[in-house]
Amino acid sequence: MSYVAPVEQIQFILNHVVPFPEVAASDRFAEATPETASAILTEAGKLAGNVLAPLNRSGDETPARLENGKVRSSPGFAQGFRAIAEGGWIGLSADPEHGGMGLPQALNMAVADMMSGACLSLQLNPLLTQGQIEALEHHASDEMKALYLPRLTSGEWSGTMNLTEPGAGSDVGALTTRAERNDDGSYAITGQKIYITWGDSDVTENVCHAVLARLPDGAKGTRGISLFLVPKFIPDGDGRPGVANSLKVVSLEEKMGIHGSPTCVMSYEGATGWLIGREHGGMAAMFTMMNCARLGVGMQGVGVAEAALQQAVAYAQERDQMGPIIRHPDVRRMLATARAEIFAARAIGLACAAAIDLERATGQAHHAARAAFLTPIAKAYGTDVGCRVADTGVQVHGGMGYVEETGAAQYLRDVRITPIYEGTNGIQAMDLVGRKLADGGEAAMRLLDEVLDDAKAAQADHPDLANEVWQAAETLREATQDLLERDLPQRFAGAVPYLMAFARVLGAHFHLRAAQKGGGSHLALARVFVGRVLPRYAADLAEARAGLDDLVAVSDDALFGRIGA
Amino acid sequence: MSYVAPVEQIQFILNHVVPFPEVAASDRFAEATPETASAILTEAGKLAGNVLAPLNRSGDETPARLENGKVRSSPGFAQGFRAIAEGGWIGLSADPEHGGMGLPQALNMAVADMMSGACLSLQLNPLLTQGQIEALEHHASDEMKALYLPRLTSGEWSGTMNLTEPGAGSDVGALTTRAERNDDGSYAITGQKIYITWGDSDVTENVCHAVLARLPDGAKGTRGISLFLVPKFIPDGDGRPGVANSLKVVSLEEKMGIHGSPTCVMSYEGATGWLIGREHGGMAAMFTMMNCARLGVGMQGVGVAEAALQQAVAYAQERDQMGPIIRHPDVRRMLATARAEIFAARAIGLACAAAIDLERATGQAHHAARAAFLTPIAKAYGTDVGCRVADTGVQVHGGMGYVEETGAAQYLRDVRITPIYEGTNGIQAMDLVGRKLADGGEAAMRLLDEVLDDAKAAQADHPDLANEVWQAAETLREATQDLLERDLPQRFAGAVPYLMAFARVLGAHFHLRAAQKGGGSHLALARVFVGRVLPRYAADLAEARAGLDDLVAVSDDALFGRIGA
Repeated sequence: MSYVAPVEQIQFILNHVVPFPEVAASDRFAEATPETASAILTEAGKLAGNVLAPLNRSGDETPARLENGKVRSSPGFAQGFRAIAEGGWIGLSADPEHGGMGLPQALNMAVADMMSGACLSLQLNPLLTQGQIEALEHHASDEMKALYLPRLTSGEWSGTMNLTEPGAGSDVGALTTRAERNDDGSYAITGQKIYITWGDSDVTENVCHAVLARLPDGAKGTRGISLFLVPKFIPDGDGRPGVANSLKVVSLEEKMGIHGSPTCVMSYEGATGWLIGREHGGMAAMFTMMNCARLGVGMQGVGVAEAALQQAVAYAQERDQMGPIIRHPDVRRMLATARAEIFAARAIGLACAAAIDLERATGQAHHAARAAFLTPIAKAYGTDVGCRVADTGVQVHGGMGYVEETGAAQYLRDVRITPIYEGTNGIQAMDLVGRKLADGGEAAMRLLDEVLDDAKAAQADHPDLANEVWQAAETLREATQDLLERDLPQRFAGAVPYLMAFARVLGAHFHLRAAQKGGGSHLALARVFVGRVLPRYAADLAEARAGLDDLVAVSDDALFGRIGA
Repeated sequence: MSYVAPVEQIQFILNHVVPFPEVAASDRFAEATPETASAILTEAGKLAGNVLAPLNRSGDETPARLENGKVRSSPGFAQGFRAIAEGGWIGLSADPEHGGMGLPQALNMAVADMMSGACLSLQLNPLLTQGQIEALEHHASDEMKALYLPRLTSGEWSGTMNLTEPGAGSDVGALTTRAERNDDGSYAITGQKIYITWGDSDVTENVCHAVLARLPDGAKGTRGISLFLVPKFIPDGDGRPGVANSLKVVSLEEKMGIHGSPTCVMSYEGATGWLIGREHGGMAAMFTMMNCARLGVGMQGVGVAEAALQQAVAYAQERDQMGPIIRHPDVRRMLATARAEIFAARAIGLACAAAIDLERATGQAHHAARAAFLTPIAKAYGTDVGCRVADTGVQVHGGMGYVEETGAAQYLRDVRITPIYEGTNGIQAMDLVGRKLADGGEAAMRLLDEVLDDAKAAQADHPDLANEVWQAAETLREATQDLLERDLPQRFAGAVPYLMAFARVLGAHFHLRAAQKGGGSHLALARVFVGRVLPRYAADLAEARAGLDDLVAVSDDALFGRIGA
């Protein structure tokens, strides 16, 4: 069974469900005409289906490996990467001044969805390179931009994010990597970083590391951190890879999945780097890079879910156990729920991307607030759906799903990283109820007002669906008010279920819109979502409001199982 | 972090939550005194923690392999198996007439919980051997019993179940393996079987295959199937392994997990077998074997969940990110919910085992009905909890959870088979709403009456918890009535959420009992379960009652993603 890129699904969402027409109507994105968008998606779909998807199994079976300190990529990955680079896909949303196409993030994220569905391990490389491009565009000096951006955009060079250290994961501020000022304006970077995705490879001629480190006069915690660009080979006067920098790959991690993506332990031993942004201002640059990557990771979840579900549906059509199992009510329940959740997660991700685009197009703060609010939801819900649907894929395959040869298990093993990296889903949820409600709930309420207004407007056409959505949104509004009155630890205890409830309501909202605009299959799927997925918001919100007290009442001993005989 | 067998938790449940005291008070199980039970559990706990748990990683890292047609087990597995056998653990509940100890299944399942938590791959061997012992005890001739039972019970020989074929998984009746009558009363078996767990090994001197096959005059479907015992080596006159039978291991499956458990493709080429039970009566014997194994698989889920949670708690105590992460509200929420679910799943499994014991002790049909009703719930909920908690374990570890060296990922990969084998969880749920409600709901209602009565009795002590449990049980009763009025396809569409709701209500019921009997930590855990896990019954039951119509309205094309642009 081969992956078919969901071009039509994405086009429907862009045209009818999220404000992409508004994006395309703006001056900034005037080039994103319907024809261009359609051509872009069609071409990306072909690349994903024909070139990238065939690499997915080989990446799993023949992992990237370390040979004499150099990473050897999985078979075919170099060619796959070149196809991505030569198609211009890395720079799809990058600044035209430095070789990018300047097209909307909504299109870029749609492409990320398709490419990660085809081959997650490989797609990670352009995704992280794009994150670095964003960081440089926003924070680097003109000279750095001129030197690095064209090469990153063209895919001659690739980019990485070096945040994590053994003692500094979710707590970035605990990092110990040091930066010292050199006389020539560059810096010497020393320290160890872990979990560096595509930290080295043979698919590009240079690898540019964006490394968080602390200057001698940097404050403790996150406020004393700076971001540096540390290339594997220092560019010479012509901007070509020159002498090797003082850095190396110590080892590769053996992981549950994404075997085709080399996950490196990196050692910097006085490596030469250049400041991105200002000294001690590394967190701002890091967030630029991470926000892009967070939404991208949400789309990875959606993409893998799509691929896993397609395979499960094809298997369920073929597999005959007293008739094709796709006719068995429970199998159909699993597949239909999965399809409805994929639609919801995809729409949330593309709505987030469209908000980013509208902010860029209009400069209006409320679009920025919308994008910021939707990012953790898109990341956490997209990746949860990725895991859930890949799990469904295994289950639908029965014993065949547990055997590696079908590939169903690979989707589950691969996608399982997505709720962890770029900030665990727990961190996303804390970001949502903490930082993203710090505006007093303005962004949340503005979004819920839209959901409520839409539901009212839909009452004439689909009273049953509209009423459910309205009621859920209203309950969510009350729960949001309630949360706003609580202190952070109490909010944090309910953060994940709150995020889940928000995702259900948004998912139902977008389904309702699709049902109104598309009818037919869209209406049928909306009924499944509103009937089976949405109603779980009530228990989510009850849990979100339950607070911390019952959790603290369970002792550490009891958690371990020492609960008395 | 090393696994500590949950001896005290199990003792508490046996003494205070499930009717084990009633079992121990019966004549049949008079030997199961509190002292004996305690000694048994303590010894099994030592074996699990000290001997089996240290094998778990090596089984993953050095999978069983096929060499010249023979299976070579993972390092240390042979010694581990011998320790299980020599401790008498295989025959714990087997008939004393043939070397068993005749102790209750409640103790046997508690031991299965601990041993599978320690090393799932290895524990599968005794679990399946026990299933074969049960089948022989109930259905075999006296001569077969005398020949095979002592050797299986002692662990000199091991037993397998050969049900599945490439075209016959959930639809057992589709099998094509043939049996022909030989002149001497034996049978010649020809066909291929797949997914045969421990289909060969070097840990026992003989492997006895229980093989489903069809005689020439066997009807189509399940009614024409017979069960045969087909030993790897045909016993000679002294009952020692003699000439090799005409069977072979064709290959081993490469699986997502349980690498230490060899999963064989078996070929029978006119192999000599002996009938278990009567001709064409194979399904009855198979169900004896499977029911035992189903409950055992439920306990596997519980056991792996226990091990995964212990490791996650230990990690969360050590891992410092702005304080130990076990103090972070969201991490604590994950851990406390997991602990509460493990308690619930363990209590449901042991309640099922106690019902089996009471049926054997008293011969009363209502105990048999209780056991039959609880089996699919114990299997499906136990294994779902296994997957959920192992997943939580990975998430709590963050990036470390995705890296294989911590072992957190192994728990998830290993336990993922449990919702599939011995009948997928979907099949369990269909069994529950189909066969197990075929008594007009009598067993279900009898169980719910107990839950309701208990909740009423607990109202004085814990009104908040008792009211929640009572309300949930009452809603479940209504939903059960509703389901009884529907045809099977409609029931099947709601089978899984119905089973989940039933598990939540039973879990809350047992938690309430524990809170009343134990107070302290038990009360704290009960609050977590009743506050966070139970409330999801409402959405489950809404889905259970939603029926099939909305699912059928989604076309196959729409499931695949062709939903129109």
